[in-house]
Formats: sequence, C-alpha cells, structure tokens
Amino acid sequence: MRVAAMVRVLVMRCMLHASLPRFHTFRAIPPEGIRCTSEGYGKGRVVVGYSDNKETILKRLRRAEGQVRGIQRMVEEDTYCIDVLTQVSAATKALENVALALLDDHLGHCVAEASAQGGPVADEKIREASAAIARLVRS
Amino acid sequence: MRVAAMVRVLVMRCMLHASLPRFHTFRAIPPEGIRCTSEGYGKGRVVVGYSDNKETILKRLRRAEGQVRGIQRMVEEDTYCIDVLTQVSAATKALENVALALLDDHLGHCVAEASAQGGPVADEKIREASAAIARLVRS
Amino acid sequence: MRVAAMVRVLVMRCMLHASLPRFHTFRAIPPEGIRCTSEGYGKGRVVVGYSDNKETILKRLRRAEGQVRGIQRMVEEDTYCIDVLTQVSAATKALENVALALLDDHLGHCVAEASAQGGPVADEKIREASAAIARLVRS
Amino acid sequence: MRVAAMVRVLVMRCMLHASLPRFHTFRAIPPEGIRCTSEGYGKGRVVVGYSDNKETILKRLRRAEGQVRGIQRMVEEDTYCIDVLTQVSAATKALENVALALLDDHLGHCVAEASAQGGPVADEKIREASAAIARLVRS
Repeated sequence: MRVAAMVRVLVMRCMLHASLPRFHTFRAIPPEGIRCTSEGYGKGRVVVGYSDNKETILKRLRRAEGQVRGIQRMVEEDTYCIDVLTQVSAATKALENVALALLDDHLGHCVAEASAQGGPVADEKIREASAAIARLVRS
Repeated sequence: MRVAAMVRVLVMRCMLHASLPRFHTFRAIPPEGIRCTSEGYGKGRVVVGYSDNKETILKRLRRAEGQVRGIQRMVEEDTYCIDVLTQVSAATKALENVALALLDDHLGHCVAEASAQGGPVADEKIREASAAIARLVRS
Repeated sequence: MRVAAMVRVLVMRCMLHASLPRFHTFRAIPPEGIRCTSEGYGKGRVVVGYSDNKETILKRLRRAEGQVRGIQRMVEEDTYCIDVLTQVSAATKALENVALALLDDHLGHCVAEASAQGGPVADEKIREASAAIARLVRS
Repeated sequence: MRVAAMVRVLVMRCMLHASLPRFHTFRAIPPEGIRCTSEGYGKGRVVVGYSDNKETILKRLRRAEGQVRGIQRMVEEDTYCIDVLTQVSAATKALENVALALLDDHLGHCVAEASAQGGPVADEKIREASAAIARLVRS
C-alpha cells in the first residue's frame, strides 16, 4: 500500500516534470505542432508570429502608406528637395521599425517554438531569421 | 565707323565672355537667382532640383506606396513573418533609392548652383545637404 | 519485489522522458544550465555563442583593424576624399558582417537554448537579441 | 582717342565682370586649378577636402581602431555575444560618422569648387559624390 502510494507520487512527479517544459515553460505550442510555418498548419486559422500585434502593425503600415502618399503630394507641388528628403527618411525609418517589430515577434514565437522542438526545423528557422536580419541591415 | 564697329564687337565679345559662365558652364541659374530655395522665388513656377526627374520619382513613389499596401494585405492574410519581412526590406530599399535620386538631383542642381554663387548661401546649402545625408545614413 | 522493480522501471522511464527533451531535441545544453549567460557559468571555460567560429571572427576583426589603419595612412598621405570614403564604407561593411555572424551564432545557440528551456530567461534573451538587432539596423 | 579710351574702359569692365565670379564669389580656388583631384595638382602639397580637419579625422580613426582591437580582446576572452555586438555597433557608428565628416568636407570644398568652375569636371564630381553617398547608405 505504502509502496503503491509512493509509486503514484513518483509517477505523478515524473509526469509533472516531463510535462512541465512542454506546457509551462514553452510558449503556447499548438497541439498540431509549431505555428509560423510558411504553409500554415491544419484546417482553420493560421497563427503567425505577429498575431497578437496584428492591429498595431497594420496601423503602422497604414501610417507609412500615408507618409509615402504625402511625399508624392510634396513632389507634385515642387516642395524643396531637402524637405522631401526629410520625409523620405522618416518613412524609411517607420518601415524599418515595422520590420524590427515583426522580427521581434518572429523570434519570440516562431523561432522560440522551433528551437524548443529542436532538430532541422529549428536550424532552418535560425538560418531564415539570420538571412532576414542581414537583408534588413543591408537595406 | 570702323572704330565704332570694333567697339561693338569687343563689347559683344566681352558680354558673351561675361555671360558665358552664367549660361553655359553653370547649369541654368535662372535670372531671378538660385533655384531650389525653400521659399521658392518669384511669382510663377518654382524650380526644384528634381524638376527634370519629377515623373520618374513620382512613379517610384507610387510603386513604393503599392508595396506598402501589399504588405498590409499580407499581414491581413496572416502571411508568414519572414515573407512579410522580405517585402518590408524591399519597400525600405525602394524608398532609400528615391532618397538617393533626390539627393543626386539636389547636389547636381541646388548645391552646384549655390556653390557657383558662393558666399553664406552656398555654405548653408552644403550644411543642409550634409545633414540630410546623415539622416539618410542613420535611418 | 515486483512492485519495487516496477517502480524502478517507471521512475527510469519518467526520468528518460523528462530528460529526453533536454539531451535530444535541444542542442547541447550543458549540465550546468544554459550557456551564453553574461556572467558565464561554472568554474572553468565560458561557452559563448560564437565559440565554434571564434577564429574566423578574430581573423575578420583583425582584417577590419588593418582596414582602419590603412584608412589612417590614406588620410596622412592626403589621399583623395572619395577614395578614403570608399575604404571607410568597406570597413563599415566588414564590421557589419562580423555583427551579422555573431548574431547568427547567438540566435543559433544562446537564444535557441534559452528558448528550449523557456520561461523568463527565454523572454529576456529574445528581448536582448531584438534590442541588439535594432542597434545594428540603426547604426 | 575718346573712342579708344571708352573701348578700353568697356573692355576692362567686361573683363572685370567676367572674372569676378571666378576670384570673388567662389571659395579659394588655387591658381593651379581645382584642388581635390584624384591625381593632386602641381608639384608640392596636395590639398584635399578634409585638409582643415585632418587631425580630428585621424583622432577619430585611431579611436575606431582602438575599438576594433578592444572587440578582438572581448572575443578572445569569450565575452557574452550581446556585449560584443554592442561594441561592434558602436565601432560601425564611429566609422559612419568619420564618413559623414569626410563627405561634408568633400561637398564643402571639392564639389563646391568644381561646381563653381562648372563644366564636365563639376558633373563628374557630383556623380562621384552621389555614388559615394549610395555606398555609404547601403553599407
């Protein structure tokens, strides 16, 4: 009896120990597998790294679009070169900040979850992220 | 009579000589003064550094605007982060190229003409251009 | 006796199960914990993300140092501005590439391993990496 | 006689008028011609755009060299990746600032003087400067 109880406790602790990393420390890996694949997974909703910040990112992109439209108006009205340039720099910076936000979400979700699973998928995600960072730094 | 004719010829040549640098070697400084001032000059048309390339620049800006709108659609459709990032880098690069084209026109016209006139206006134009370049490099 | 054996088997399986993610799917987390902490861990050798590429990175840095020294010589010898500028751009690019290589190693080891462990350490690593990327993009 | 005197006066005024822009409004073009050519001019000292700021630029370059050497030490001592990255970004920024200073001097002297003289040399200087700016923005 005491042994059976001990076994139960041990098994519970082991299971707890085994399961903890999966359901507690890793962030929300869906049961279907890793989210943030290029193809999506499963039937329904695709979950991407920026899902939680989608509205903020769309708002920033709309603002950047407005900036670019504003620059067109400036050019049409023969605004002084330097004033146009200042706005182009501002729009460029706005887009770069969108990229940094997307990258942060991608690292914090897609790369983190792939890393938690390990294996070639994780390696591929790191390679992909590094290439995106290089494109951003060089653009 | 011969002397008067000679005077006329000499005066013509002198005037030609005097005017040559203004209308030949310097590029097209308008009689009202330097073009490309922030306030514009005179009643009519303002001439800016990018006047000759206005249509090209507008076309590029419209394309950049389209790219930013395309990125919004990608985000709305939950496109994979890395694919969104690639497009943001492309749009950033497109805007940077617009800035480089504007800067080239500005240096080739506004700064060149101010330099030809010299004085504090020229110094101010150089300072202004350098500041714009710094903003661009740091954005 | 049979119960004790069963317990042992169960405990072994649980431990195996619990340990598997640590030694199999995650890449090489040392028994002392995550490597790549700012303080280092343990008595002996600190393992950093770029450990495997240390020599390559040192070689690139030495070359960049040589480039900067070469630029000094150019300036001392009154080399034409544009030629000096070309070399400064090259040295800047070389340093940026070192940064991209370091970042790739950091993501592939430090961030990946922290993500595999999850929890606040993982979040902190992501935040830190994002800040470093932002500094790089804006420099 | 009176006519000949008048002719002389006119010719003098014309010559004065023609020469004024050259020796008055343009800044300090040396009698040998434009300074800041890739080949130098004349026998003696070559004058480059950054001549007046040579010591400042050399000091900045020496500091940048020291930074790059410091980064090597950090790597040799297995300093945490992010701390190394922070220093690489700082060194990159330092080099970029040297480039911006060189460019400012180049625009303010070499390009300004070439523009004052006009003609194909001026066009070439602008083209060259634009290309250097593009390299800088893209590095």
